[in-house]
Amino acid sequence: MTQDMSLLIAKQHVVYARCIDNGDYEDWPYFFVEDCKYVVTSDRNHREGLEAGIIWADSQAMLIDRITALRQANIYEFHKYRHIISHPYILSDEDGEVRSETSFMVVRITRDGPMDVFAVGRYLDHYQVSDGNIKIKERIVVCDSSHFDTLLVIPL
Amino acid sequence: MTQDMSLLIAKQHVVYARCIDNGDYEDWPYFFVEDCKYVVTSDRNHREGLEAGIIWADSQAMLIDRITALRQANIYEFHKYRHIISHPYILSDEDGEVRSETSFMVVRITRDGPMDVFAVGRYLDHYQVSDGNIKIKERIVVCDSSHFDTLLVIPL
Amino acid sequence: MTQDMSLLIAKQHVVYARCIDNGDYEDWPYFFVEDCKYVVTSDRNHREGLEAGIIWADSQAMLIDRITALRQANIYEFHKYRHIISHPYILSDEDGEVRSETSFMVVRITRDGPMDVFAVGRYLDHYQVSDGNIKIKERIVVCDSSHFDTLLVIPL
Repeated sequence: MTQDMSLLIAKQHVVYARCIDNGDYEDWPYFFVEDCKYVVTSDRNHREGLEAGIIWADSQAMLIDRITALRQANIYEFHKYRHIISHPYILSDEDGEVRSETSFMVVRITRDGPMDVFAVGRYLDHYQVSDGNIKIKERIVVCDSSHFDTLLVIPL
Repeated sequence: MTQDMSLLIAKQHVVYARCIDNGDYEDWPYFFVEDCKYVVTSDRNHREGLEAGIIWADSQAMLIDRITALRQANIYEFHKYRHIISHPYILSDEDGEVRSETSFMVVRITRDGPMDVFAVGRYLDHYQVSDGNIKIKERIVVCDSSHFDTLLVIPL
Repeated sequence: MTQDMSLLIAKQHVVYARCIDNGDYEDWPYFFVEDCKYVVTSDRNHREGLEAGIIWADSQAMLIDRITALRQANIYEFHKYRHIISHPYILSDEDGEVRSETSFMVVRITRDGPMDVFAVGRYLDHYQVSDGNIKIKERIVVCDSSHFDTLLVIPL
Protein backbone atom coordinates (compact mmCIF):
# COMPACT_ATOMS: atom_id res chain seq x y z
CA MET A 1 0.00 0.00 0.00
CA THR A 2 1.29 3.41 -0.92
CA GLN A 3 1.32 5.48 2.20
CA ASP A 4 -0.41 8.85 2.19
CA MET A 5 2.48 11.33 2.43
CA SER A 6 0.74 13.61 4.94
CA LEU A 7 0.18 10.61 7.20
CA LEU A 8 3.83 9.59 6.88
CA ILE A 9 4.93 13.10 7.86
CA ALA A 10 2.38 13.20 10.71
CA LYS A 11 3.99 10.06 12.13
CA GLN A 12 7.45 11.59 11.77
CA HIS A 13 6.36 14.69 13.69
CA VAL A 14 5.18 12.48 16.50
CA VAL A 15 8.49 10.62 16.75
CA TYR A 16 10.37 13.94 16.76
CA ALA A 17 8.13 15.55 19.40
CA ARG A 18 8.27 12.42 21.55
CA CYS A 19 12.07 12.57 21.58
CA ILE A 20 12.03 16.12 22.92
CA ASP A 21 9.06 15.77 25.27
CA ASN A 22 10.54 12.64 26.84
CA GLY A 23 13.85 14.44 27.39
CA ASP A 24 15.93 12.28 25.03
CA TYR A 25 17.75 15.36 23.73
CA GLU A 26 20.86 13.42 22.62
CA ASP A 27 18.79 11.68 19.94
CA TRP A 28 17.40 14.91 18.54
CA PRO A 29 20.24 15.86 16.12
CA TYR A 30 19.87 12.53 14.32
CA PHE A 31 16.48 13.47 12.93
CA PHE A 32 18.49 15.71 10.61
CA VAL A 33 20.89 15.00 7.74
CA GLU A 34 24.50 16.01 8.43
CA ASP A 35 24.34 18.98 6.10
CA CYS A 36 21.10 20.33 7.56
CA LYS A 37 19.64 23.70 8.39
CA TYR A 38 17.71 24.36 11.61
CA VAL A 39 16.35 27.79 12.39
CA VAL A 40 13.98 29.10 15.04
CA THR A 41 12.62 32.52 14.13
CA SER A 42 9.57 34.75 14.49
CA ASP A 43 6.85 35.26 11.92
CA ARG A 44 7.82 38.92 11.61
CA ASN A 45 11.48 38.15 10.91
CA HIS A 46 10.52 35.39 8.52
CA ARG A 47 8.19 37.65 6.53
CA GLU A 48 10.86 40.33 6.31
CA GLY A 49 13.33 37.78 4.98
CA LEU A 50 15.69 38.19 7.91
CA GLU A 51 17.96 35.18 8.21
CA ALA A 52 18.92 35.71 11.83
CA GLY A 53 16.71 33.88 14.23
CA ILE A 54 16.73 32.94 17.86
CA ILE A 55 18.53 29.78 16.89
CA TRP A 56 20.48 29.29 13.68
CA ALA A 57 22.41 26.14 12.79
CA ASP A 58 23.57 24.80 9.44
CA SER A 59 24.92 21.39 10.35
CA GLN A 60 24.08 18.39 12.47
CA ALA A 61 27.37 18.99 14.32
CA MET A 62 26.04 22.35 15.53
CA LEU A 63 22.90 20.66 16.82
CA ILE A 64 25.01 18.11 18.72
CA ASP A 65 27.05 20.97 20.23
CA ARG A 66 23.86 22.66 21.27
CA ILE A 67 22.67 19.61 23.21
CA THR A 68 26.07 19.13 24.83
CA ALA A 69 25.97 22.74 26.02
CA LEU A 70 22.45 22.29 27.31
CA ARG A 71 23.48 19.24 29.35
CA GLN A 72 26.76 20.66 30.65
CA ALA A 73 25.49 24.09 31.61
CA ASN A 74 22.56 22.57 33.38
CA ILE A 75 21.86 25.86 35.06
CA TYR A 76 18.54 26.49 33.41
CA GLU A 77 15.48 26.33 35.53
CA PHE A 78 13.90 22.90 35.28
CA HIS A 79 11.33 22.83 32.54
CA LYS A 80 10.04 20.49 29.87
CA TYR A 81 7.80 20.70 26.84
CA ARG A 82 4.69 19.04 25.49
CA HIS A 83 4.11 19.37 21.74
CA ILE A 84 0.61 19.23 20.28
CA ILE A 85 0.82 19.04 16.51
CA SER A 86 -1.82 19.47 13.81
CA HIS A 87 -1.94 17.40 10.63
CA PRO A 88 0.75 18.41 8.10
CA TYR A 89 0.09 20.25 4.87
CA ILE A 90 2.19 18.85 2.01
CA LEU A 91 3.52 21.71 -0.11
CA SER A 92 5.39 19.50 -2.60
CA ASP A 93 6.47 15.89 -3.00
CA GLU A 94 8.89 15.05 -5.83
CA ASP A 95 11.52 12.32 -6.09
CA GLY A 96 11.74 11.85 -2.35
CA GLU A 97 12.00 15.59 -1.65
CA VAL A 98 9.03 16.57 0.47
CA ARG A 99 8.17 20.06 1.71
CA SER A 100 5.49 20.59 4.31
CA GLU A 101 3.99 23.15 6.66
CA THR A 102 2.65 22.05 10.04
CA SER A 103 1.05 23.98 12.90
CA PHE A 104 2.31 23.29 16.39
CA MET A 105 1.72 24.33 19.96
CA VAL A 106 4.22 23.83 22.76
CA VAL A 107 3.16 23.92 26.39
CA ARG A 108 5.93 24.45 28.93
CA ILE A 109 5.85 22.72 32.28
CA THR A 110 8.07 24.18 35.02
CA ARG A 111 8.88 22.52 38.30
CA ASP A 112 6.92 24.70 40.64
CA GLY A 113 4.97 26.96 38.40
CA PRO A 114 1.92 26.60 36.25
CA MET A 115 1.80 25.35 32.68
CA ASP A 116 1.77 27.96 29.97
CA VAL A 117 1.46 28.11 26.22
CA PHE A 118 5.12 28.62 25.42
CA ALA A 119 5.03 28.81 21.65
CA VAL A 120 2.69 28.41 18.70
CA GLY A 121 3.63 28.57 15.07
CA ARG A 122 4.47 26.40 12.11
CA TYR A 123 7.22 24.06 11.02
CA LEU A 124 8.40 24.77 7.47
CA ASP A 125 10.12 21.53 6.62
CA HIS A 126 12.13 20.00 3.82
CA TYR A 127 12.47 16.23 4.17
CA GLN A 128 14.46 13.60 2.35
CA VAL A 129 12.33 10.46 2.12
CA SER A 130 13.68 7.13 0.89
CA ASP A 131 12.37 3.63 1.61
CA GLY A 132 10.39 4.81 4.60
CA ASN A 133 13.46 6.51 6.04
CA ILE A 134 12.86 10.20 6.70
CA LYS A 135 15.49 12.81 7.49
CA ILE A 136 15.10 16.56 7.89
CA LYS A 137 17.19 18.61 5.45
CA GLU A 138 15.77 21.90 6.63
CA ARG A 139 13.45 22.93 9.45
CA ILE A 140 12.44 26.55 9.87
CA VAL A 141 10.45 26.90 13.09
CA VAL A 142 8.37 30.05 12.59
CA CYS A 143 6.94 31.18 15.93
CA ASP A 144 3.88 33.41 15.69
CA SER A 145 4.90 35.69 18.52
CA SER A 146 7.95 37.94 18.48
CA HIS A 147 8.18 37.85 22.25
CA PHE A 148 10.71 35.22 23.10
CA ASP A 149 11.52 33.88 26.44
CA THR A 150 15.22 33.82 27.12
CA LEU A 151 14.67 30.32 28.48
CA LEU A 152 14.64 28.85 24.98
CA VAL A 153 17.29 26.19 25.58
CA ILE A 154 15.34 23.08 24.67
CA PRO A 155 14.89 22.75 20.90
CA LEU A 156 11.43 23.17 19.39
CA MET B 1 -6.45 3.66 -3.32
CA THR B 2 -9.64 4.67 -1.60
CA GLN B 3 -8.79 7.44 0.78
CA ASP B 4 -9.87 7.14 4.39
CA MET B 5 -12.57 9.79 4.73
CA SER B 6 -11.39 11.03 8.14
CA LEU B 7 -7.92 11.54 6.68
CA LEU B 8 -9.36 13.44 3.71
CA ILE B 9 -11.29 15.73 6.07
CA ALA B 10 -8.21 16.13 8.32
CA LYS B 11 -6.30 17.42 5.30
CA GLN B 12 -9.13 19.78 4.41
CA HIS B 13 -9.14 21.22 7.94
CA VAL B 14 -5.45 21.94 7.59
CA VAL B 15 -5.87 23.81 4.31
CA TYR B 16 -8.70 25.86 5.83
CA ALA B 17 -6.80 26.70 9.02
CA ARG B 18 -3.67 27.56 7.04
CA CYS B 19 -5.63 30.08 4.97
CA ILE B 20 -6.78 31.92 8.09
CA ASP B 21 -3.57 31.57 10.12
CA ASN B 22 -1.49 32.88 7.21
CA GLY B 23 -3.83 35.87 6.87
CA ASP B 24 -5.16 35.00 3.39
CA TYR B 25 -8.68 36.02 4.42
CA GLU B 26 -9.84 36.76 0.86
CA ASP B 27 -9.52 33.05 0.01
CA TRP B 28 -11.62 31.95 2.98
CA PRO B 29 -15.14 32.29 1.49
CA TYR B 30 -14.21 29.93 -1.35
CA PHE B 31 -13.97 26.96 0.98
CA PHE B 32 -17.76 27.16 0.99
CA VAL B 33 -20.41 26.49 -1.66
CA GLU B 34 -22.34 29.59 -2.77
CA ASP B 35 -25.47 28.54 -0.94
CA CYS B 36 -23.69 27.81 2.34
CA LYS B 37 -24.37 28.29 6.01
CA TYR B 38 -21.69 29.52 8.42
CA VAL B 39 -22.48 30.05 12.08
CA VAL B 40 -20.33 30.73 15.13
CA THR B 41 -22.19 30.05 18.35
CA SER B 42 -21.73 28.87 21.93
CA ASP B 43 -22.34 25.39 23.25
CA ARG B 44 -25.13 26.71 25.48
CA ASN B 45 -26.97 28.40 22.60
CA HIS B 46 -26.45 25.36 20.39
CA ARG B 47 -27.88 22.98 23.00
CA GLU B 48 -30.90 25.22 23.50
CA GLY B 49 -31.53 25.24 19.76
CA LEU B 50 -31.03 28.99 19.45
CA GLU B 51 -30.25 29.92 15.88
CA ALA B 52 -28.67 33.28 16.63
CA GLY B 53 -24.96 33.11 17.07
CA ILE B 54 -22.07 35.49 17.25
CA ILE B 55 -21.78 35.18 13.50
CA TRP B 56 -24.56 34.05 11.21
CA ALA B 57 -24.30 33.87 7.44
CA ASP B 58 -26.28 31.89 4.88
CA SER B 59 -24.40 32.57 1.67
CA GLN B 60 -20.88 32.80 0.34
CA ALA B 61 -21.64 36.41 -0.61
CA MET B 62 -22.13 37.26 3.07
CA LEU B 63 -18.76 35.71 3.86
CA ILE B 64 -17.12 37.80 1.15
CA ASP B 65 -18.79 40.93 2.58
CA ARG B 66 -17.49 40.04 5.99
CA ILE B 67 -13.89 39.89 4.78
CA THR B 68 -14.26 43.14 2.85
CA ALA B 69 -15.52 44.83 6.01
CA LEU B 70 -12.66 43.35 8.01
CA ARG B 71 -10.08 44.73 5.56
CA GLN B 72 -11.70 48.15 5.10
CA ALA B 73 -12.43 48.87 8.73
CA ASN B 74 -8.93 47.87 9.66
CA ILE B 75 -9.38 49.45 13.05
CA TYR B 76 -9.17 46.26 15.04
CA GLU B 77 -6.19 45.74 17.20
CA PHE B 78 -3.58 43.68 15.38
CA HIS B 79 -4.04 40.01 16.12
CA LYS B 80 -3.79 36.69 14.38
CA TYR B 81 -4.77 33.11 15.07
CA ARG B 82 -3.15 29.71 15.23
CA HIS B 83 -5.46 26.71 14.89
CA ILE B 84 -4.60 23.36 16.42
CA ILE B 85 -7.03 20.73 15.21
CA SER B 86 -7.73 17.18 16.38
CA HIS B 87 -8.53 14.32 14.05
CA PRO B 88 -12.10 14.50 12.67
CA TYR B 89 -14.92 12.20 13.67
CA ILE B 90 -17.02 11.16 10.66
CA LEU B 91 -20.71 11.21 11.59
CA SER B 92 -21.98 10.10 8.17
CA ASP B 93 -20.70 9.62 4.64
CA GLU B 94 -23.27 8.96 1.91
CA ASP B 95 -23.18 9.80 -1.80
CA GLY B 96 -20.61 12.52 -1.37
CA GLU B 97 -22.41 14.11 1.56
CA VAL B 98 -20.12 13.97 4.58
CA ARG B 99 -20.89 15.15 8.09
CA SER B 100 -18.17 15.40 10.70
CA GLU B 101 -17.37 16.75 14.14
CA THR B 102 -13.87 18.03 14.88
CA SER B 103 -12.33 19.52 18.03
CA PHE B 104 -10.28 22.67 17.64
CA MET B 105 -8.29 25.12 19.68
CA VAL B 106 -7.43 28.63 18.56
CA VAL B 107 -4.59 30.57 20.13
CA ARG B 108 -4.64 34.31 19.56
CA ILE B 109 -1.43 36.26 19.12
CA THR B 110 -1.60 40.02 19.67
CA ARG B 111 1.09 42.49 18.71
CA ASP B 112 2.35 43.45 22.12
CA GLY B 113 0.57 41.12 24.44
CA PRO B 114 0.89 37.51 25.39
CA MET B 115 -0.65 34.56 23.60
CA ASP B 116 -3.90 33.25 24.97
CA VAL B 117 -6.27 30.37 24.33
CA PHE B 118 -8.90 32.32 22.43
CA ALA B 119 -11.43 29.59 21.70
CA VAL B 120 -11.93 25.86 21.99
CA GLY B 121 -14.84 23.89 20.67
CA ARG B 122 -15.94 21.78 17.75
CA TYR B 123 -16.67 22.20 14.09
CA LEU B 124 -19.96 20.59 13.07
CA ASP B 125 -19.53 20.30 9.33
CA HIS B 126 -21.46 19.22 6.30
CA TYR B 127 -19.25 18.75 3.26
CA GLN B 128 -19.90 18.09 -0.40
CA VAL B 129 -17.18 15.75 -1.66
CA SER B 130 -16.74 14.92 -5.36
CA ASP B 131 -13.61 13.71 -7.14
CA GLY B 132 -11.37 14.85 -4.34
CA ASN B 133 -12.93 18.31 -4.41
CA ILE B 134 -14.34 19.33 -1.03
CA LYS B 135 -16.62 22.25 -0.31
CA ILE B 136 -18.33 23.21 2.92
CA LYS B 137 -22.12 23.33 2.71
CA GLU B 138 -22.55 24.07 6.39
CA ARG B 139 -20.15 24.84 9.23
CA ILE B 140 -21.45 25.39 12.74
CA VAL B 141 -18.57 26.49 14.96
CA VAL B 142 -19.66 25.57 18.49
CA CYS B 143 -17.43 27.30 21.03
CA ASP B 144 -17.35 25.71 24.45
CA SER B 145 -17.33 28.96 26.36
CA SER B 146 -20.16 31.48 26.35
CA HIS B 147 -17.77 34.30 27.08
CA PHE B 148 -16.95 35.91 23.79
CA ASP B 149 -14.43 38.50 23.12
CA THR B 150 -15.81 41.38 21.12
CA LEU B 151 -12.66 41.15 19.04
CA LEU B 152 -14.05 38.25 17.05
CA VAL B 153 -13.45 39.73 13.59
CA ILE B 154 -11.28 37.04 12.06
CA PRO B 155 -13.32 33.96 11.13
CA LEU B 156 -12.82 30.74 13.05
CA MET C 1 -7.44 -1.99 2.37
CA THR C 2 -5.34 -2.61 5.43
CA GLN C 3 -5.80 0.32 7.72
CA ASP C 4 -2.74 2.12 9.02
CA MET C 5 -2.70 1.27 12.74
CA SER C 6 -1.78 4.79 13.87
CA LEU C 7 -4.76 6.13 11.92
CA LEU C 8 -7.04 3.53 13.48
CA ILE C 9 -5.87 4.54 16.96
CA ALA C 10 -6.19 8.26 16.08
CA LYS C 11 -9.83 7.66 15.22
CA GLN C 12 -10.35 5.77 18.47
CA HIS C 13 -8.89 8.66 20.49
CA VAL C 14 -11.37 10.99 18.83
CA VAL C 15 -14.36 8.81 19.72
CA TYR C 16 -13.14 8.57 23.32
CA ALA C 17 -12.50 12.31 23.68
CA ARG C 18 -15.83 13.14 22.05
CA CYS C 19 -17.65 10.99 24.63
CA ILE C 20 -16.10 12.97 27.49
CA ASP C 21 -16.19 16.41 25.89
CA ASN C 22 -19.86 16.00 25.00
CA GLY C 23 -20.64 14.97 28.58
CA ASP C 24 -21.73 11.40 27.80
CA TYR C 25 -19.91 10.11 30.87
CA GLU C 26 -22.07 6.98 31.21
CA ASP C 27 -20.63 5.65 27.94
CA TRP C 28 -17.03 6.15 29.02
CA PRO C 29 -16.44 2.87 30.95
CA TYR C 30 -17.38 0.86 27.86
CA PHE C 31 -14.29 1.95 25.98
CA PHE C 32 -12.50 -0.46 28.33
CA VAL C 33 -12.52 -4.24 28.66
CA GLU C 34 -14.07 -5.54 31.90
CA ASP C 35 -10.72 -6.52 33.34
CA CYS C 36 -9.06 -3.19 32.58
CA LYS C 37 -6.63 -0.85 34.26
CA TYR C 38 -7.09 2.91 34.28
CA VAL C 39 -4.64 5.15 36.06
CA VAL C 40 -4.11 8.91 36.13
CA THR C 41 -0.70 9.84 37.46
CA SER C 42 2.06 12.42 37.18
CA ASP C 43 5.23 12.11 35.14
CA ARG C 44 7.31 12.22 38.34
CA ASN C 45 5.38 9.38 39.97
CA HIS C 46 5.44 7.38 36.77
CA ARG C 47 9.21 7.73 36.37
CA GLU C 48 9.75 6.69 39.98
CA GLY C 49 7.64 3.59 39.43
CA LEU C 50 5.03 4.62 41.98
CA GLU C 51 1.79 2.81 41.36
CA ALA C 52 -0.44 5.20 43.28
CA GLY C 53 -1.91 7.88 41.11
CA ILE C 54 -4.61 10.48 41.36
CA ILE C 55 -7.00 7.90 40.03
CA TRP C 56 -6.47 4.17 40.14
CA ALA C 57 -8.94 1.59 38.91
CA ASP C 58 -8.48 -2.02 37.87
CA SER C 59 -11.88 -2.94 36.51
CA GLN C 60 -14.64 -1.54 34.35
CA ALA C 61 -16.94 -1.84 37.37
CA MET C 62 -14.80 0.69 39.22
CA LEU C 63 -15.07 3.07 36.28
CA ILE C 64 -18.85 2.70 36.30
CA ASP C 65 -18.89 3.43 40.05
CA ARG C 66 -16.83 6.50 39.45
CA ILE C 67 -19.31 7.92 36.97
CA THR C 68 -22.25 7.10 39.22
CA ALA C 69 -20.54 9.00 42.05
CA LEU C 70 -19.82 11.93 39.76
CA ARG C 71 -23.47 12.15 38.73
CA GLN C 72 -24.94 11.64 42.20
CA ALA C 73 -22.65 13.98 44.06
CA ASN C 74 -23.23 16.66 41.50
CA ILE C 75 -21.73 19.20 43.84
CA TYR C 76 -18.69 19.96 41.76
CA GLU C 77 -18.46 23.34 40.17
CA PHE C 78 -19.74 23.22 36.63
CA HIS C 79 -16.91 22.52 34.24
CA LYS C 80 -16.25 20.60 31.08
CA TYR C 81 -13.26 19.57 29.01
CA ARG C 82 -12.03 19.90 25.47
CA HIS C 83 -9.37 17.40 24.38
CA ILE C 84 -6.89 18.23 21.66
CA ILE C 85 -4.94 15.13 20.71
CA SER C 86 -1.79 14.64 18.63
CA HIS C 87 -1.26 11.71 16.28
CA PRO C 88 -0.47 8.45 18.13
CA TYR C 89 2.90 6.76 18.20
CA ILE C 90 2.59 2.97 17.85
CA LEU C 91 4.99 1.26 20.25
CA SER C 92 4.06 -2.29 19.25
CA ASP C 93 1.41 -4.12 17.26
CA GLU C 94 1.29 -7.90 17.52
CA ASP C 95 -1.64 -10.31 17.20
CA GLY C 96 -4.22 -7.65 17.96
CA GLU C 97 -2.33 -6.32 20.97
CA VAL C 98 -1.42 -2.72 20.29
CA ARG C 99 0.56 -0.38 22.53
CA SER C 100 0.75 3.31 21.82
CA GLU C 101 1.80 6.64 23.27
CA THR C 102 -0.19 9.77 22.45
CA SER C 103 0.24 13.39 23.51
CA PHE C 104 -2.86 15.22 24.70
CA MET C 105 -3.94 18.60 25.97
CA VAL C 106 -7.10 19.22 27.93
CA VAL C 107 -8.61 22.69 28.21
CA ARG C 108 -11.10 23.20 31.02
CA ILE C 109 -14.11 25.44 30.57
CA THR C 110 -15.85 26.66 33.73
CA ARG C 111 -19.22 28.33 33.85
CA ASP C 112 -18.18 31.85 34.72
CA GLY C 113 -14.46 31.78 34.53
CA PRO C 114 -11.91 31.77 31.78
CA MET C 115 -10.61 28.76 29.92
CA ASP C 116 -7.34 27.30 31.11
CA VAL C 117 -4.94 24.57 30.08
CA PHE C 118 -5.98 21.97 32.62
CA ALA C 119 -3.63 19.13 31.76
CA VAL C 120 -1.05 18.09 29.22
CA GLY C 121 0.68 14.76 29.02
CA ARG C 122 0.55 11.43 27.28
CA TYR C 123 -1.70 8.41 27.11
CA LEU C 124 0.20 5.15 27.50
CA ASP C 125 -2.27 2.67 26.08
CA HIS C 126 -2.67 -1.03 25.59
CA TYR C 127 -5.48 -1.88 23.17
CA GLN C 128 -7.13 -5.10 22.13
CA VAL C 129 -7.98 -4.85 18.43
CA SER C 130 -10.11 -7.42 16.62
CA ASP C 131 -12.15 -6.97 13.44
CA GLY C 132 -12.09 -3.22 13.74
CA ASN C 133 -13.35 -3.41 17.30
CA ILE C 134 -11.04 -1.65 19.73
CA LYS C 135 -11.11 -1.88 23.51
CA ILE C 136 -8.72 -0.42 26.05
CA LYS C 137 -7.03 -3.01 28.27
CA GLU C 138 -4.85 -0.46 30.02
CA ARG C 139 -4.65 3.32 29.94
CA ILE C 140 -2.04 5.15 32.00
CA VAL C 141 -2.66 8.87 31.76
CA VAL C 142 0.70 10.46 32.55
CA CYS C 143 0.23 14.17 33.27
CA ASP C 144 3.34 16.29 32.84
CA SER C 145 2.69 18.49 35.83
CA SER C 146 2.64 17.27 39.42
CA HIS C 147 0.33 20.06 40.44
CA PHE C 148 -3.13 18.63 40.39
CA ASP C 149 -6.31 20.43 40.78
CA THR C 150 -8.63 18.82 43.29
CA LEU C 151 -11.39 19.32 40.77
CA LEU C 152 -10.30 16.24 38.83
CA VAL C 153 -13.71 14.53 38.80
CA ILE C 154 -14.23 14.16 35.06
CA PRO C 155 -12.05 11.39 33.60
CA LEU C 156 -9.20 12.30 31.29
